[in-house]
Amino acid sequence: MWPGDDRAGDLFTDASVLAAMVRVEAAWLDALVVHGVAGPDARDDLTGLVGPDDVEALARDAESGGNPVIPLLKLLRQRLAARNPAAASWLHKGLTSQDVLDTGLVLCLTEAIGRIRADLSAQIASLVRLAGDHRDTPMAGRTLTQHAIPITFGLKAASWLTGVLDARDRLASVGDLPVQLGGAAGSLAAPVSLAGSPAVVRDLVETTAGALGLRARDPWHTARAPLTGAADALVTCTDAWGRIANDVLVAARPEIHELSEGAVEGRGGSSAMPNKQNPVLSILVRRAALAAPFLAATVHAGAAAAVDERPDGGWHVEWATLRTLTRRTVTAGAQTAELLAGLHVETAWMTANLAAARPGIDAEQRSIAPDAAPGEPYRGATDQIIDAAITRAKE
Amino acid sequence: MWPGDDRAGDLFTDASVLAAMVRVEAAWLDALVVHGVAGPDARDDLTGLVGPDDVEALARDAESGGNPVIPLLKLLRQRLAARNPAAASWLHKGLTSQDVLDTGLVLCLTEAIGRIRADLSAQIASLVRLAGDHRDTPMAGRTLTQHAIPITFGLKAASWLTGVLDARDRLASVGDLPVQLGGAAGSLAAPVSLAGSPAVVRDLVETTAGALGLRARDPWHTARAPLTGAADALVTCTDAWGRIANDVLVAARPEIHELSEGAVEGRGGSSAMPNKQNPVLSILVRRAALAAPFLAATVHAGAAAAVDERPDGGWHVEWATLRTLTRRTVTAGAQTAELLAGLHVETAWMTANLAAARPGIDAEQRSIAPDAAPGEPYRGATDQIIDAAITRAKE
Amino acid sequence: MWPGDDRAGDLFTDASVLAAMVRVEAAWLDALVVHGVAGPDARDDLTGLVGPDDVEALARDAESGGNPVIPLLKLLRQRLAARNPAAASWLHKGLTSQDVLDTGLVLCLTEAIGRIRADLSAQIASLVRLAGDHRDTPMAGRTLTQHAIPITFGLKAASWLTGVLDARDRLASVGDLPVQLGGAAGSLAAPVSLAGSPAVVRDLVETTAGALGLRARDPWHTARAPLTGAADALVTCTDAWGRIANDVLVAARPEIHELSEGAVEGRGGSSAMPNKQNPVLSILVRRAALAAPFLAATVHAGAAAAVDERPDGGWHVEWATLRTLTRRTVTAGAQTAELLAGLHVETAWMTANLAAARPGIDAEQRSIAPDAAPGEPYRGATDQIIDAAITRAKE
Amino acid sequence: MWPGDDRAGDLFTDASVLAAMVRVEAAWLDALVVHGVAGPDARDDLTGLVGPDDVEALARDAESGGNPVIPLLKLLRQRLAARNPAAASWLHKGLTSQDVLDTGLVLCLTEAIGRIRADLSAQIASLVRLAGDHRDTPMAGRTLTQHAIPITFGLKAASWLTGVLDARDRLASVGDLPVQLGGAAGSLAAPVSLAGSPAVVRDLVETTAGALGLRARDPWHTARAPLTGAADALVTCTDAWGRIANDVLVAARPEIHELSEGAVEGRGGSSAMPNKQNPVLSILVRRAALAAPFLAATVHAGAAAAVDERPDGGWHVEWATLRTLTRRTVTAGAQTAELLAGLHVETAWMTANLAAARPGIDAEQRSIAPDAAPGEPYRGATDQIIDAAITRAKE
Repeated sequence: MWPGDDRAGDLFTDASVLAAMVRVEAAWLDALVVHGVAGPDARDDLTGLVGPDDVEALARDAESGGNPVIPLLKLLRQRLAARNPAAASWLHKGLTSQDVLDTGLVLCLTEAIGRIRADLSAQIASLVRLAGDHRDTPMAGRTLTQHAIPITFGLKAASWLTGVLDARDRLASVGDLPVQLGGAAGSLAAPVSLAGSPAVVRDLVETTAGALGLRARDPWHTARAPLTGAADALVTCTDAWGRIANDVLVAARPEIHELSEGAVEGRGGSSAMPNKQNPVLSILVRRAALAAPFLAATVHAGAAAAVDERPDGGWHVEWATLRTLTRRTVTAGAQTAELLAGLHVETAWMTANLAAARPGIDAEQRSIAPDAAPGEPYRGATDQIIDAAITRAKE
Repeated sequence: MWPGDDRAGDLFTDASVLAAMVRVEAAWLDALVVHGVAGPDARDDLTGLVGPDDVEALARDAESGGNPVIPLLKLLRQRLAARNPAAASWLHKGLTSQDVLDTGLVLCLTEAIGRIRADLSAQIASLVRLAGDHRDTPMAGRTLTQHAIPITFGLKAASWLTGVLDARDRLASVGDLPVQLGGAAGSLAAPVSLAGSPAVVRDLVETTAGALGLRARDPWHTARAPLTGAADALVTCTDAWGRIANDVLVAARPEIHELSEGAVEGRGGSSAMPNKQNPVLSILVRRAALAAPFLAATVHAGAAAAVDERPDGGWHVEWATLRTLTRRTVTAGAQTAELLAGLHVETAWMTANLAAARPGIDAEQRSIAPDAAPGEPYRGATDQIIDAAITRAKE
Repeated sequence: MWPGDDRAGDLFTDASVLAAMVRVEAAWLDALVVHGVAGPDARDDLTGLVGPDDVEALARDAESGGNPVIPLLKLLRQRLAARNPAAASWLHKGLTSQDVLDTGLVLCLTEAIGRIRADLSAQIASLVRLAGDHRDTPMAGRTLTQHAIPITFGLKAASWLTGVLDARDRLASVGDLPVQLGGAAGSLAAPVSLAGSPAVVRDLVETTAGALGLRARDPWHTARAPLTGAADALVTCTDAWGRIANDVLVAARPEIHELSEGAVEGRGGSSAMPNKQNPVLSILVRRAALAAPFLAATVHAGAAAAVDERPDGGWHVEWATLRTLTRRTVTAGAQTAELLAGLHVETAWMTANLAAARPGIDAEQRSIAPDAAPGEPYRGATDQIIDAAITRAKE
Repeated sequence: MWPGDDRAGDLFTDASVLAAMVRVEAAWLDALVVHGVAGPDARDDLTGLVGPDDVEALARDAESGGNPVIPLLKLLRQRLAARNPAAASWLHKGLTSQDVLDTGLVLCLTEAIGRIRADLSAQIASLVRLAGDHRDTPMAGRTLTQHAIPITFGLKAASWLTGVLDARDRLASVGDLPVQLGGAAGSLAAPVSLAGSPAVVRDLVETTAGALGLRARDPWHTARAPLTGAADALVTCTDAWGRIANDVLVAARPEIHELSEGAVEGRGGSSAMPNKQNPVLSILVRRAALAAPFLAATVHAGAAAAVDERPDGGWHVEWATLRTLTRRTVTAGAQTAELLAGLHVETAWMTANLAAARPGIDAEQRSIAPDAAPGEPYRGATDQIIDAAITRAKE
């Protein structure tokens, strides 16, 4: 139902979330042992206790408690009891469901963001190349669908690059996402009760965060900016890609023909029309850009519905929404990277369309410089803009 | 990630959509034979050719053409060729991918709507009972979170019922959803070319629609009101249920305690707090009501992005979105039905809260009828409103 | 900030809402007199008591009570006391703020829907003409931005018409919107206390509804389907128009040039480029189609947030949102009507683009009918589809 | 229609946008003179040429060109010609409509953000006080609407504070918003043609940006992250405030009664019920939090619809949407600041509700420390969390 979704592979699948939650429990259990809260016999990395085969039953049992952590713990404790009773009795001690689920989401998100960053880098490399190679490739600039003034394709590529760099920077500003470790009501009451002092709990939190590669942070059960910020960064990516896709889709129209997607055996065909070569990647990227604003807004609506020390629905709406948004973004990022790597620039068509747009398209130039020789360049700061974008790309 | 999702069972799963698309191809193939366009040797019901095991590969291969129909046809033709070459050569003839996918979506939607209607009926039965049983159960009416005037719980149940009946009527007004049969660009050019005349094609369309239990209709490739109307009806349902859930969540707060979810072994527990009995169904229903407006809006955004004779992304964004919206609605409908069937009305708490709200809550009555005896009823048209809602429920 | 907004004129302005609320109070007051609840000396049509000059102060004072009805009543009572003390003392008796505001909104909405229906009729007339006139005007059909098969422009116009007719029917199904008359908590307690019996209150409601041209209905303070249904119908309109605008914007690209907006003195110019003739109406319609799904979804989100006998925010978010959505729709409807009335069909360009698309665009036809003579028509059921749409338009 | 909107005063009104656009033209004109592109006789600060009285006519005339800049320029040139023909001829030279409108929007946005920052500071001061004063005020912690474990109100205030600080930091990360100066198609072609070299144009851009208090930046006509980032920051604010409002609305319910809005003469009354004291500020803030995600998402949808060198609708949808989102946020920010400054903490009710929640609410503590003396504190890291939030507030 979402062609290309398999590009997101195992990222944020049910099985991945399950594995991430187990990692959280294991890291916490380990921290309890490391800091002497639990005895050394409680050490257990929880390996092999649950796996993809458990996903279906856990999903079904998640309804009773309203979240998947409760049945997961039941299963883990039951299986762990057989091999390590001490670990079974210390498992999850001091945590609340939300700690495990939120941190598990953050782990899945972090892994996906890593993948998106890699695809952004690949896109940036392609765009640097396109902007540089085509800084002198003339084409018609268009505004409001009509011919405006001549530009070069390099300028357009630099503008695409600017959007992608803005997205890169926004994603970077999300920074290291934090663990969620707050206990039942965000006061860390149970951990302190177990550990004997807030200072030891601080150590537990930092050790756990460190083991998971996340940032330590005080509880944010009902202050959801870490997740909304990530969602906003993802939709900033799809905005930038959607705009590129829109441009390619216009340019790939046969009457315009200035850009085409790289040919791939079997791609872009039709079930009935042997003549078709559809710009499939652009279509699918555009699709993601249409959907993403609504998904990010849903995460915000959940955050805005927070109440009490754990919300009654506002929290629950986040999980699947963030997952869908993330996978859509990963998929679109990979598709955009491939689109840009293979993009054909049909310079002859650009030249022909520009020629056909004359003399109208030169009207502004003529009005400013009536005495300019015909064909006098009208590049403005094109080179400077391209160079600045390329420089920024290399930061 | 969406606890309770298994309540939607097989509705609108990848495998169900696949099966639905095969049903569409089979119905069309059969119509071709019935009306003599194809010879009788092309008759084949396509049974057993593809199944759930093919879902993963088809999903992966869907990206090349941008939709799952293209790889599905390849697979069907290949497997059919072995047992029925004539059928293989007539398969899909005259259709376009969008015909098969749209009609497949409509089949899945229709089946899900049937399920939702059944849950609406169950909810209505519960609400008729609650409104009737509690027409004289006094409680505090509340506006803007504060005590307003006394009402009865029967009046509140009648108001819930009104919302559910509005949703029922809206869903009914969606009516029989139509087949999509238009050929490559919505002109039915290929079918007419094959069949020899528009009249025969009209018969083909009606036979196919009849076999699928759908309504015949001229092509709507880029006029998406059938789908947006269905999406709107679904969100009208979740609006009505969300409002009930909100009321239950307020009333289930321990300080108010006027309503509680029926106790179910193992439901509502906490991973850390043995004291908890959470109103899980209401929380999960509220969650769906938070998400649904964004999903329906995405379907509209897709419709509004329609262009040409098949849109470049606006179409593609509908599939998964409609699927998610539909499954969310089915799940929330089943949860609401269960919630209402098991709802505990704590009349003693209603009475006590109302007593504690006096004399303030009687202020309006006193201002209108200063000489009324204390305790004089202030029911207004409560009975008439309840009776009217119950009567409407039975229509 | 929303060019073209003045097309919506006085519809749903602050002053119009104010006037509508005064009409509601006047109709109720009159009903009280007509049915003998108030004495004949309370008769007053409230004419001239407040007007546009009061809008600013009322808007400012609306915050204290959270809605504009409270300061409006204070002002009305104060001014009315001077000329008609009996009317002043009966004013608003039995009603609650929400009754007045909801019914006022419904009045504004009804008036705007009337205007939209008129514009839909004009659009339908234009589309009937275009579909009929151009049933034989060949052009390239396009799917997924690429050439598909030949169609005629009449078929495309019929498809636009289908979308507009779907919108018309959806708007019609909204039907007569209801009054909201429920008293403090939707039980009609105060009216019954004043009038002496539910039967008299039923008469009061019907008389009031009749005077306002609205439908009588039991209270719907927290069952908001009448408003969400209207919002959904409005976005169904903008979807249909957005799709037309998208098609015009593609076709108006200079390289395609198949359609152009009617030239209007001074329209479509640029601040810097004397050569430009921008398709301004289509751009502005497309803009509305981008915004409308979010506005309708906000109305749903408000409905889904309903709680108690009057919601704590879910109600308040509706007013301005509905107003904005309605004015956007009215504006876009008028713009679309003008766009269609003046649309230039550049048949020569259609012919040329189709010729240039050959032979590729004939591939499907050749694959189905390899022996067909070159140039053999491939119209399918074009005439039947056009005729059916035209027939439906005339219903 | 949006009670409290007058709190946003002149921010981002039509007249303010008009004034901002004139400031942009004036700053550019001045830069042209400063850098010797225009002669000194072109110097004119454009003061007094247009004003609020021109808004209506300009709004009406904006439709023809699709934006208000074109009629504004016509008016400015006409009026300026009388007093300064040289200035009239240099006015807007080198710019495009989008430069003026985008930069005008940025100016309005910047001014509004300044106001929001001031309100955030006031909120932070109140929250620091509440968190500090009530670090030892016991209350029931609640999760999923049910009693969880005891907390203190100071912890809850610290959690509110965390949300507000996250919003503050997000708003700060928006940083100095940039000017938009790109010329017709973002290449700065006309400015370079006028000024003779890209280097001079760089000076023109920096001088203009400096005069307007904005950041210089290469053109971003179709790379809209500056605006989407601002919109995201605004909704991050309303999320944080909405959550506070939700908590107040629950706590203000008469049966819970733990918090109440500060009494203000005349606020919170009802049109019919003399007993009511509604938590109006919280209701209105919650309303904004319901609406804001959709508004920010609309800005993203506009950004994702960018195409060519100036989009055909995606640009146009931003203006009014950003304006509405900004004014809603300013209003909600002021209301939240007032809410927090006047919030009554009903410690006796907190104590009583907590006592009534026992012994259930102590279950977790008892399960962890079965031998703890009754009444043993269970504060966890409450003090550390409060102190950290207060420290962060002072950064």
